[in-house]
Amino acid sequence: MSEKIKRFILPESEIPTQWYNIQADMVNKPMPPLNPATKQPLEPKDLYPIFAEELSRQELDQKNAWIDIPEEVREMYKYYRSTPLVRAYGLEKALGTPAHIYFKNESVSPVGSHKLNSALAQAYYCKKEGITNITTETGAGQWGAALSYAAKVFGLEAAVYQVKISYNQKPYRRSIMQTFGAQVTPSPSMSTRAGKDILTKDPNNQGSLGTAISEAVELAVSTPNCKYTLGSVLSHVTLHQTVIGLEAEKQMAMAGEYPDIVIGCFGGGSNFGGISFPFMRHNILEGKKTKFIAAEPASCPKLTHGVFQYDFGDVAGYTPLLPMFTLGHNFMPANIHAGGLRYHGAGVIVSQLLKDGYMSAVDIKQIESFEAGVLFAQAEGIIPAPESCHAIAAAINEANKCKESGEEKVILFNLSGHGLIDMAAYDQFLSGSLQNYEVTDEEVAKNLSELEKII
Amino acid sequence: MSEKIKRFILPESEIPTQWYNIQADMVNKPMPPLNPATKQPLEPKDLYPIFAEELSRQELDQKNAWIDIPEEVREMYKYYRSTPLVRAYGLEKALGTPAHIYFKNESVSPVGSHKLNSALAQAYYCKKEGITNITTETGAGQWGAALSYAAKVFGLEAAVYQVKISYNQKPYRRSIMQTFGAQVTPSPSMSTRAGKDILTKDPNNQGSLGTAISEAVELAVSTPNCKYTLGSVLSHVTLHQTVIGLEAEKQMAMAGEYPDIVIGCFGGGSNFGGISFPFMRHNILEGKKTKFIAAEPASCPKLTHGVFQYDFGDVAGYTPLLPMFTLGHNFMPANIHAGGLRYHGAGVIVSQLLKDGYMSAVDIKQIESFEAGVLFAQAEGIIPAPESCHAIAAAINEANKCKESGEEKVILFNLSGHGLIDMAAYDQFLSGSLQNYEVTDEEVAKNLSELEKII
Repeated sequence: MSEKIKRFILPESEIPTQWYNIQADMVNKPMPPLNPATKQPLEPKDLYPIFAEELSRQELDQKNAWIDIPEEVREMYKYYRSTPLVRAYGLEKALGTPAHIYFKNESVSPVGSHKLNSALAQAYYCKKEGITNITTETGAGQWGAALSYAAKVFGLEAAVYQVKISYNQKPYRRSIMQTFGAQVTPSPSMSTRAGKDILTKDPNNQGSLGTAISEAVELAVSTPNCKYTLGSVLSHVTLHQTVIGLEAEKQMAMAGEYPDIVIGCFGGGSNFGGISFPFMRHNILEGKKTKFIAAEPASCPKLTHGVFQYDFGDVAGYTPLLPMFTLGHNFMPANIHAGGLRYHGAGVIVSQLLKDGYMSAVDIKQIESFEAGVLFAQAEGIIPAPESCHAIAAAINEANKCKESGEEKVILFNLSGHGLIDMAAYDQFLSGSLQNYEVTDEEVAKNLSELEKII
Repeated sequence: MSEKIKRFILPESEIPTQWYNIQADMVNKPMPPLNPATKQPLEPKDLYPIFAEELSRQELDQKNAWIDIPEEVREMYKYYRSTPLVRAYGLEKALGTPAHIYFKNESVSPVGSHKLNSALAQAYYCKKEGITNITTETGAGQWGAALSYAAKVFGLEAAVYQVKISYNQKPYRRSIMQTFGAQVTPSPSMSTRAGKDILTKDPNNQGSLGTAISEAVELAVSTPNCKYTLGSVLSHVTLHQTVIGLEAEKQMAMAGEYPDIVIGCFGGGSNFGGISFPFMRHNILEGKKTKFIAAEPASCPKLTHGVFQYDFGDVAGYTPLLPMFTLGHNFMPANIHAGGLRYHGAGVIVSQLLKDGYMSAVDIKQIESFEAGVLFAQAEGIIPAPESCHAIAAAINEANKCKESGEEKVILFNLSGHGLIDMAAYDQFLSGSLQNYEVTDEEVAKNLSELEKII
């Protein structure tokens, strides 16, 4: 074995001091969110009832490419950042590919995923503005765990609505949130009007991110001194996650390489955007030709089978109308284990970038994702989150193409989190009882046609 | 908040190239292991039927203070080492202590604990000597997971006997081992003579590390081209774990400090010895006055309530006789969640060092350990393994003493692993249903008296 450097870690002084706001550099800016009643574009102040004011401003900021990371947030980043950039020699060997595969290991965050990057920022801004309570939704629980800890750090009370199917599939994540001191409720619940409406129509509804968002928003707007926080989809969340790609850019330079392909799994877009946008900046500004691939589940394929249109971000229709690739906010995804990817729509920035050809998307079937995850685990020793397995599957596909063509491409993907809480899913896969789910264009069209009268 | 450095990470070039063998520097060497039949001291070749030859030599090496880390092992270390040394500012603040608390974060190893440090070494030496199959025991599953992955790295087949109570309490650990490709059997089982003997006497026997060791050793000696591997207790395992303390020594220097107190949780001694011995070296050779504290569970208190005598390492009496602090190899520990600490004896090196006053021990009750774990989780964001909670509890006790005395002592403890697979234990704690178990001196005396005829 030769002396090869495997991990690239930045000194604390090199941790980014600013996030990158790609909106400022986009040729075609995202279309504005609309007030559903008036159909008028929203301004930041229209979002103040739901979000912290600074987050509302960040959400709609199309001017400033660089936003300072508050010192208090950066100090907390230092506990786990930079995360390592790892050269996946084990995986390369297992595949027999000439490609150079790198992954950014966000799984070493204390809460086990990249979600903490935005949770700390959101909790900080809420605290700074005098908020005492925050609410949120969570799917698999990665975001909920991160927010629960971030709330504790900044002395806030957290209430989390967890998608019911995940609440039952992954009880350990609930325990983690409770250990951090949060109140956790399975969604849909009878504790909100939105939840009651869903359950009275469909008592066995297993929930989705869309239902949980409705409940968390309702609790926030009906509680004094309380704001809602979100784990993905929105532009300010993706902004905070660019710390991943900004670090990766410096770390790739340490490795003496630059990626030909950047891959992230795709739920709402924050992990994908986080690793991609700092590199995509060079495509936009300097004409670089890096390829960006969002890896979404075949059971919830808004980028590959959805339609670009205005839609709500939640099931109940509490949110503004957003210009997004969507399957329809009434879409109920299959109960795949990658709970963090079970969302009907894509963030407005990513939607515009996909429309404009700056990126592409692939859909991955559940069994293929776990095949990739087990191969990666055996090669690299890290058991990936079911969500991250989608990125790994896409990376393996690209590496296998290199094997055929003989090309030494440089592939970078984001390992958004570990799967240690998801071992029941691995059990199912290993025992052969895991299922695939796919959505057809016809199903999407039918779903969207039912919404036409609303929006 | 001021600009304080929180994490100290070594460049790859600074990862140790040698392990530290404290036996060479000890004033009173450990007494030799004995052949149970002849009562004669063992030589390395007597261990060859069970262990790889190089590991057998390391086990009894009292001459060489420094043992080269094979390049193949060090290359694998580079995937996760150095682990961070972290200044626990959050915990210091929560306690209001003037003490400076540092922890070595072994939980960021791909398999979630320090165990990989020795698993890679043991699998490597077995592979090098032409072995194809390895067996082992595991309690909570940290060691089993590490060995399963290490076996995969070096192309070996692994068979793991997991203590039955842990197999049932922590099903995710079994899944992790299976994901890495290992065969996992709950112990006691009907697959070995030792297991059958136990189960015919006591069909509901929930197992202990002692029963699992008997089964794994039996499988190894009765299978061609197969060796046994062990996760703690033995001197060569502790040797490999000194990479922890050797790194910590350099990292403490980066922080400009030197520990007054070093703490590790205590099962068989490898994690405690791993963090302690490189610092204890300076006590032995240079008269430094660092205090070393082993934190063991009150339910399995061999250091604080056991007796120093020759005893077997396993329930069936397959191992050599070892000079150790022991509760008796027939001791069946209570079903605490810290499965990795449920072992009747202490390694021979630690036993001698305790006898000679180089270190001390404290016993921690289960509920106190989880109180410490939750406090740490909320302060630092990392949910600790139930085993590590014992070290945290001891560190908190020392930090609280500093609060009373006003002393700014430097406390270093080893965070041996994370507790993400142990959330059921946290659930029990949070719901108030967790129990304490204690062992009295009378119980220990009675237990040991039953063994007198054997050894």
